[in-house]
Amino acid sequence: MDEFMQMAIAEAQQGLAEGGIPIGSVLVKDGQLVARGHNKRVQENNPILHGEMDCLNNAGRIGSYRNTVIYSTLMPCYMCAGTIVQFKIPKVIVGESQTFSGARAFLEAHGVEVIDLNLPECVEMMQQFIQEKPQLWFEDIMEL
Amino acid sequence: MDEFMQMAIAEAQQGLAEGGIPIGSVLVKDGQLVARGHNKRVQENNPILHGEMDCLNNAGRIGSYRNTVIYSTLMPCYMCAGTIVQFKIPKVIVGESQTFSGARAFLEAHGVEVIDLNLPECVEMMQQFIQEKPQLWFEDIMEL
Repeated sequence: MDEFMQMAIAEAQQGLAEGGIPIGSVLVKDGQLVARGHNKRVQENNPILHGEMDCLNNAGRIGSYRNTVIYSTLMPCYMCAGTIVQFKIPKVIVGESQTFSGARAFLEAHGVEVIDLNLPECVEMMQQFIQEKPQLWFEDIMEL
Repeated sequence: MDEFMQMAIAEAQQGLAEGGIPIGSVLVKDGQLVARGHNKRVQENNPILHGEMDCLNNAGRIGSYRNTVIYSTLMPCYMCAGTIVQFKIPKVIVGESQTFSGARAFLEAHGVEVIDLNLPECVEMMQQFIQEKPQLWFEDIMEL
């Protein structure tokens, strides 16, 4: 597994240790790390801080997103996918989409390349979390 | 004009006074104000804080967004529209879409009702801003 997905998984695990939702993300530009982040809905009482959004927040204003790749341990939802399309991030690499199929078709329809690594450790991390805290998960994907 | 759009315009004007991008937003639930916000890209060095996102951030975790309406002085971009779809906010009322046509078709395709008030004061506010600070505007819509 590449080092950036390993970082995204480490971010997700940090979120879990904080009592949060275990989804991590990393932004890479020209092959170099720009920022990392994780879901902070619980930690910061903030519904917009999905992993990808926290990562982009942490990156700050970097100008153009050409030549960037965003990693996420889970397939992006419409919020994160809409952000990827708006920011013109050309490529998304995800840990898995079994837990949540997300907005892959929307991303691809807007020309974003999506690679799903389908990693057992990412699936297991989410499945265990959802079993333990189903309400938090359903709140996070707004199935209320 | 209804009081909530007036609040959204006041938020946009506050953002302008702070040196920011003049776009404001208000979230209403069951006819009551929940939160207000404005674009803080410049003020907080944060590319994800469009007006609508700042407003949803300020609202915190409110559970279901059924019976909510989000107001924005400008038609939402894909980031904000994706968030509206993901959060299942059923209705968007915007000040204008002449400056930026945004993601109206995407919102409507996902069942979101979109009302465009086409207000001259909103158009004028954006046009004046873009004339004065074109680079900030193009950065905000990621036309770099």
